[in-house]
Amino acid sequence: MNAGFVAGVDIGGSKALAVVVDDANRVLGQVRLPTRLGAAGVVATAAEAVRQACEMAGATPAGLSAVGVGIPGLVHPSNGSVSHAVNLDLGADPVDLGAALQRELGVPVSVENDVNAVAVGAHRLAGAPRKDLAVLSIGTGLAAGIVVDGSLHRGSRGAAGEVGHIPVDPVGRWCSCGQRGCLETIASGSALSAAWQAPLDDGTTVWSAASAGDETAQAAVRSFGAGVAAAVRLLVLAWDVEHVVLAGGVTEVGQPMLDVVRAELVAAEQGSAFLVAMRLAERVSLLPSQSPVAAVGAAVLARDVLLAEGTALPGTAVRELSQ
Amino acid sequence: MNAGFVAGVDIGGSKALAVVVDDANRVLGQVRLPTRLGAAGVVATAAEAVRQACEMAGATPAGLSAVGVGIPGLVHPSNGSVSHAVNLDLGADPVDLGAALQRELGVPVSVENDVNAVAVGAHRLAGAPRKDLAVLSIGTGLAAGIVVDGSLHRGSRGAAGEVGHIPVDPVGRWCSCGQRGCLETIASGSALSAAWQAPLDDGTTVWSAASAGDETAQAAVRSFGAGVAAAVRLLVLAWDVEHVVLAGGVTEVGQPMLDVVRAELVAAEQGSAFLVAMRLAERVSLLPSQSPVAAVGAAVLARDVLLAEGTALPGTAVRELSQ
Repeated sequence: MNAGFVAGVDIGGSKALAVVVDDANRVLGQVRLPTRLGAAGVVATAAEAVRQACEMAGATPAGLSAVGVGIPGLVHPSNGSVSHAVNLDLGADPVDLGAALQRELGVPVSVENDVNAVAVGAHRLAGAPRKDLAVLSIGTGLAAGIVVDGSLHRGSRGAAGEVGHIPVDPVGRWCSCGQRGCLETIASGSALSAAWQAPLDDGTTVWSAASAGDETAQAAVRSFGAGVAAAVRLLVLAWDVEHVVLAGGVTEVGQPMLDVVRAELVAAEQGSAFLVAMRLAERVSLLPSQSPVAAVGAAVLARDVLLAEGTALPGTAVRELSQ
Repeated sequence: MNAGFVAGVDIGGSKALAVVVDDANRVLGQVRLPTRLGAAGVVATAAEAVRQACEMAGATPAGLSAVGVGIPGLVHPSNGSVSHAVNLDLGADPVDLGAALQRELGVPVSVENDVNAVAVGAHRLAGAPRKDLAVLSIGTGLAAGIVVDGSLHRGSRGAAGEVGHIPVDPVGRWCSCGQRGCLETIASGSALSAAWQAPLDDGTTVWSAASAGDETAQAAVRSFGAGVAAAVRLLVLAWDVEHVVLAGGVTEVGQPMLDVVRAELVAAEQGSAFLVAMRLAERVSLLPSQSPVAAVGAAVLARDVLLAEGTALPGTAVRELSQ
């Protein structure tokens, strides 16, 4: 049952984080590097981060069983090519990231959407065993990753969890997707930026301004919180997941954001015994910041893909670990 | 691998339909009886329908491996008790329907929410093998049943698919659940009745009136169709199911309803390449009317429960058939 060491890389627009984990998903090495953009830059960054993480772990890239990558954008479910990752300077033409990195490192590489990687990482790293869980990733956009019965649910076309583009207001703001009033126009970093701009470049954020009593900032935070609360309700009503974990850049502010979302969940319960019975405020939590959840998730997915394909390690317990 | 004959009963507010199926889910006997209301009435109706279906199939109730029941209302996931089935005169106090029917017939009985039974039946009866599928049940209310990777997805608390109570309009009609603008206030039989009443008791329906040019009826049908289209989009965006099957009392009108829903799906694509790429109009279909889908689904679920528990038939291929 020993799959050996596996590396995972979480590639974001500004930084890439690589980990090397053992069979029990213990992190043995962890490295953060600035991301170089474009196809060649992304591959070089990922390869270098894996090499450095291996060094910390006392391993070599060639000694790894597999490498998993979590990356924003559209990931083709079968071949791991990536397109539409604008923050990484990857456009409409699919880039065969998995194959390029595999050539660079000499080990099998699997590629997964970053939100899915976070969902798998959050599921494996949860203190208590969790059967199911949704991660709501709130960054520039809004999307969810879903783990059902312990396995990532990708959907029939790899597009499950696109909850950001569900309209919830017929006269709401136009969304980049061409619809009106999508959840993403209310519950995202870009929605928050549109509703409140820092008056001076003095480090004030919408959160600090709201806390200091700025009414425009408070209204922006409440509207955002109500949008996130709506997305949480939607995930629970559609999937009946037990836990919804908030993740993504906007959650870095931490507890103040969770407080606002919980307050909006409770406010919506007024007059609805149906919502009260769902106890949503108890079911929502924040992804612990600073934990390499996406990188670990990418590593776990790489191990699972490897074992499911049964290519690498004859005689191992393929079924037990496979997704 | 022979699980023997299994019966399934679909209990509705006006009629109950029972089938007896063999291992290949072929229907060997099928009976429809008027439903008697209340706990005792429901049990007596189900028992009598199973007895008659057995007679048609050349079997006896005692010779069945199991009986499955599909029923509206809140079904407790572990013990099969039922509450809040108002059309059946079952109130807030849970009725132990499974145990009562088991005593009556002398065979193991499993009980499932009727929408879930339809989803499983539609999945098994589909011409082509389908990995996943959502059934959107449009009756007095609105709810979905979801089959993922071939298995019914019940959710952590047995409440998955409650999409009728997802709000999509902040200033919409109040819903019975205490929220505003829920999908159920737009895309349900009750929404359609609220928007259009037959002027005379002459057999005119909103559909025939719309087709005859009545503008109020046409507006009601379009609003309803847009609501169903919104629910279809939501199911595909959240789950990425390949197929959405429309079912429930309102779909008995047939093709005119499918046409309206498809027209609204296509109309919403204007200006959204994102929606165009999803090809939703091709992914939605109608449950064939007159087919005993819910009863067959209930029978399939009963067989699965039986085999998963491994209680009845030592030596059978439990894993292969279990959910």
